[in-house]
Amino acid sequence: MTAPVVTLLTDYGLKDDFVGVCHGVIATICPEARIIDINHGVRRHDIRAGALSLRGALPYMPVGVHVAVVDPDVGAARRAVALRLADGRLLVGPDNGLLWLAAQAGAGVLEAVDIAQSPFRLEPLSATFHGRDIFSPVAAQLAAGATLAEAGEPLAPEELIALELPPPRVEAEALVAHAIYVDGFGNVQLNADHRDLARAGLKLGGAIVLESPRLERARAGHYVRTFADARPGEMIVYEDAYRMLAVAISHGDAAETLGLSADDELRISPA
Amino acid sequence: MTAPVVTLLTDYGLKDDFVGVCHGVIATICPEARIIDINHGVRRHDIRAGALSLRGALPYMPVGVHVAVVDPDVGAARRAVALRLADGRLLVGPDNGLLWLAAQAGAGVLEAVDIAQSPFRLEPLSATFHGRDIFSPVAAQLAAGATLAEAGEPLAPEELIALELPPPRVEAEALVAHAIYVDGFGNVQLNADHRDLARAGLKLGGAIVLESPRLERARAGHYVRTFADARPGEMIVYEDAYRMLAVAISHGDAAETLGLSADDELRISPA
Amino acid sequence: MTAPVVTLLTDYGLKDDFVGVCHGVIATICPEARIIDINHGVRRHDIRAGALSLRGALPYMPVGVHVAVVDPDVGAARRAVALRLADGRLLVGPDNGLLWLAAQAGAGVLEAVDIAQSPFRLEPLSATFHGRDIFSPVAAQLAAGATLAEAGEPLAPEELIALELPPPRVEAEALVAHAIYVDGFGNVQLNADHRDLARAGLKLGGAIVLESPRLERARAGHYVRTFADARPGEMIVYEDAYRMLAVAISHGDAAETLGLSADDELRISPA
Repeated sequence: MTAPVVTLLTDYGLKDDFVGVCHGVIATICPEARIIDINHGVRRHDIRAGALSLRGALPYMPVGVHVAVVDPDVGAARRAVALRLADGRLLVGPDNGLLWLAAQAGAGVLEAVDIAQSPFRLEPLSATFHGRDIFSPVAAQLAAGATLAEAGEPLAPEELIALELPPPRVEAEALVAHAIYVDGFGNVQLNADHRDLARAGLKLGGAIVLESPRLERARAGHYVRTFADARPGEMIVYEDAYRMLAVAISHGDAAETLGLSADDELRISPA
Repeated sequence: MTAPVVTLLTDYGLKDDFVGVCHGVIATICPEARIIDINHGVRRHDIRAGALSLRGALPYMPVGVHVAVVDPDVGAARRAVALRLADGRLLVGPDNGLLWLAAQAGAGVLEAVDIAQSPFRLEPLSATFHGRDIFSPVAAQLAAGATLAEAGEPLAPEELIALELPPPRVEAEALVAHAIYVDGFGNVQLNADHRDLARAGLKLGGAIVLESPRLERARAGHYVRTFADARPGEMIVYEDAYRMLAVAISHGDAAETLGLSADDELRISPA
Repeated sequence: MTAPVVTLLTDYGLKDDFVGVCHGVIATICPEARIIDINHGVRRHDIRAGALSLRGALPYMPVGVHVAVVDPDVGAARRAVALRLADGRLLVGPDNGLLWLAAQAGAGVLEAVDIAQSPFRLEPLSATFHGRDIFSPVAAQLAAGATLAEAGEPLAPEELIALELPPPRVEAEALVAHAIYVDGFGNVQLNADHRDLARAGLKLGGAIVLESPRLERARAGHYVRTFADARPGEMIVYEDAYRMLAVAISHGDAAETLGLSADDELRISPA
């Protein structure tokens, strides 16, 4: 029998013991669980970045219980939830949009419960660390075999908070898209894919021009397959490992060099 | 049978392979051990911060062998020790106060041994990396079933180095307390709890004034339950997840904004 | 039976989900594998730093499958390889010198295969994340019992890319050596050991002078056993935990204070 899997994704960082304490809580309740840290470097309170990371990473995880905590309103009225997806995965976290993209990608929510008052939560409940006191113990009990019905109160899936991404558009032979994520190397992910570039008339290997209200001037570059297809220092657009378009500086940091950040609108056109 | 647990807490950081090498040493000696990283982000050489993190985290860890290494005097005359607590936990680390708070919280030390010359240590012994050469192999052998008597030479628990925290005091309707820890989000933990605030006449929800020699001016705020009970940017005092009082800026960084750091004396009074 | 071990060493950092996704891929393919993170803080694209870390850490790891990814030319023509060493370890990574030092220390390469077209790789193959799509799945299959011959195409070990370190030399009672690695505390490792210092007439405890084109002036210090043998703030040369010479500032940051970095040439002579 394979050990049950619990994955963790948070904005807790690794400078403190927050993540370690969640591991301890889970291992105490479900000693046979294998815990996988997906990512604890989500920018503080950046729900969309967490939602994107969770959506991108889950297809590479064993099916299990997947905890995500980016929770600026911890202790306030936001719901805490556990969800059962059509693909068999269980998601646990705050109901603030963080779980939304992964739930959609996982073929939708079959069952949802509100776990704010879960019998599995730790007492005394803190007002600021629900990762420890609600999400980790509920996830561990689910990994140990508890049902969603035992973990909380039924909730209609339609009531869950949605998260919308700004859609790309094609305008006069240009692709207009939004930066939605900046990784640790300064690569800037866009909410668009290679089909959108094709609609704008751009071909792999072609010269491009990048414009943005955030850029002092238009930047020339190329639409390439990978960093190694450009000179060091050159601006490129490429399909990243999650099959989204991204802007990079070959062997450099695009976000810093170009001054881009999440939410910036970018316009990409043939040179 | 549940796997034995070894936890690690250090100031090694995660930029190098120091933590990974300790994992390798433990897994080589005791392959069945589950290793939990409590925290490797303790500020370099900050024994008190490590001691507080260990005390706060241990109640959430499975009972096991708990290694802590914040060790500015590695290679010098300080003792290396393994301790058996009344609550069944084993602690392993330098005898410099780092283990003291956790040992007291764990109902005291039943048995202590000096492991500087432990037969379990790795040879050749380095002068600078006792985490690898003494603490990890001793912990792994204990996890695999060795006794303290096999790990080192008996030591009277009364000889262990103590760590004292500056006590809070109440003065003319004000609580005077010390900052003892700053977390990665800039929240400033005080060595005081909600009973101390009550003694100073402060009630949950009440307006407060914060003063300190480190602040240019007094700061107004509120004593609240959680971040979400204040406007973004407002200074608050709250009970943190370890049931200690802490100063925060709602959705901000109190240490940076206010210029506070560990050891600062703070005065909190009703507005 | 002991679980198979897979170790990971990369320059991916811990701000994103790259490392977590590799864990997920491995755990999906080989659920019984124990994964040990050696180091994900290698400076981006610094192949030599990764090679040194791998060489230093492997002797402390259980024998297993050891993945390393520092891969500035991902997606370009560099080979991807899996190696079987004479000491029984398997290495997996790009063929750019990263595995070289560890392979030599592990008594040499008995068998090598090119895994760029491995039947074990994930499809669709990304152009930028071979850690996920090639190295992790191949390592997991090897951990689960696959042979090298099943993982890729045979490759003559003589064709592997070598990595050379700048050799130290003794000149007129001085040791001239190169900085090859700076750790997270600012300690500067040299490609020289205590025998080289002895050849230059330097004895443990002796006063030394450190010179470098990068230093504005010569610095006085001592050749000592450990940090605690010097006054806080004093410059020291010592044998580090990997038995290499290193320059440090006792209780300080030598790289920052002295302005040193990897590749600097240093001259150490008796005072």
